Amino acid sequence: VGTLSIVGVGPGAEAQITAAARAALESADVIVGYSLYLDLVRAWLPDANFRPSPIGDEAARARDALLLAAEHERVALVGSGDAGVYGLAGLAYELRAAMVWTGRPPPEIEVVPGITAALAAAALLGAPLGHDFAVISLSDLLTPWEVIVRRLRAAAGADFVLALYNPTSTRRGHRFQEALAILRAVRAPETPVGVVANAYREGQRVTVTELASLEAGMVDMLTIVLVGNSQTRVLDGKMVTPRGYGIPLSPNPLPHEGGGGFECAR
Amino acid sequence: VGTLSIVGVGPGAEAQITAAARAALESADVIVGYSLYLDLVRAWLPDANFRPSPIGDEAARARDALLLAAEHERVALVGSGDAGVYGLAGLAYELRAAMVWTGRPPPEIEVVPGITAALAAAALLGAPLGHDFAVISLSDLLTPWEVIVRRLRAAAGADFVLALYNPTSTRRGHRFQEALAILRAVRAPETPVGVVANAYREGQRVTVTELASLEAGMVDMLTIVLVGNSQTRVLDGKMVTPRGYGIPLSPNPLPHEGGGGFECAR
Repeated sequence: VGTLSIVGVGPGAEAQITAAARAALESADVIVGYSLYLDLVRAWLPDANFRPSPIGDEAARARDALLLAAEHERVALVGSGDAGVYGLAGLAYELRAAMVWTGRPPPEIEVVPGITAALAAAALLGAPLGHDFAVISLSDLLTPWEVIVRRLRAAAGADFVLALYNPTSTRRGHRFQEALAILRAVRAPETPVGVVANAYREGQRVTVTELASLEAGMVDMLTIVLVGNSQTRVLDGKMVTPRGYGIPLSPNPLPHEGGGGFECAR
Repeated sequence: VGTLSIVGVGPGAEAQITAAARAALESADVIVGYSLYLDLVRAWLPDANFRPSPIGDEAARARDALLLAAEHERVALVGSGDAGVYGLAGLAYELRAAMVWTGRPPPEIEVVPGITAALAAAALLGAPLGHDFAVISLSDLLTPWEVIVRRLRAAAGADFVLALYNPTSTRRGHRFQEALAILRAVRAPETPVGVVANAYREGQRVTVTELASLEAGMVDMLTIVLVGNSQTRVLDGKMVTPRGYGIPLSPNPLPHEGGGGFECAR
């Protein structure tokens, strides 16, 4: 019986993949995935055995990968970012449990973690995720919009930094406006906001703005939006959320020549 | 003027570091960090120029790294997990802005993302982060306990999956009991909970249990706790949060031999 490795390849740059993810791809007999992600992998591993599939129908893709893994030694199912965050890993476990495996045991499943979009965007923006944060997808394809609204309100009200995945699409541009209204009702207009498109990929765009200036036209399906908490500030163009609350850095630090005399709250 | 790379090395296994993080360490003139993390790196890069520092006093460590980066080409500051999640990246940006740079320009700072503990633990547990999640540190060293309580209540009430960092320490064992009481007031007793210690390191422990059975004795400073949402279930021993709400998999899928007839909600 084979193993299905569900591999998060990170944002899509060869440099941002982990050694374990790369090894799982290199040792796979077959690599399954959405054709656009496989094109990224093909640039690093031109000779692998790829089985691309069209966008959508993730259940069919996960099922195909499970069936291949029952017949091969090693199959890799590729996802962008982390394969467990809004990814195919959960679907694969669900399908394996739901499918009837007559005459052969079900394949093993392993999940290989990857750099999820929030971490990639955060590194490019500065350090916006330095304190507690909530990750929310604004897609109402699989989640009732009321659930998403409840989470936005709860996370905004409790001063979480927010990482918004799938902020909009052509079909649901008005949803992003609703989400913005919820955030603006709670957070100050000058709250720093980071918008990142195509992190570590061609066409990368990194924008630091503020909540009052955030507009639907700044986001699309390839964008992630990070909204600061009440402590987040912009320093030298970077979005920074301090680790501490109400424990500011000394406003008058000694110059660094002062050596041991430098004052700074932990 | 040099560059300070703030490098997240992931959970601590050579296989879980990204290529970019490894390259930043390999090209560094000096590698600064907490001695325990540097010991991990030394196993992969024995010949690097290490400058270890004791635990605690992160501000002094970040300041030293900044001063070294003003004098060298490339300095790496090592953190576990992702360097921006409760890490040193924010502190470095804050210090750079607060320090007086007489006679020389301040160093450049770049953040190299890494696999944060929640992602590492999730991959070992199954796919618990398949839907919206909140990351909360239970350490009240830098954050008032009231803020933490407010976040726990908000995230539990809005049905987020929870990733609890720094769940306890000898000094604040009672805090974990308080956090448990908050979660139990809202979530069902049978809610799946994952507890992971030393992910991808020697002494790794992966436990799937339920909220009613979670006890303070199961966690310590090296542990991360993932609490499922109302949809999370345990399948073949793995903790799985479906991506969809109220859109269950077909309870009676055709056997996989059925091929195209397999029924599964997206």
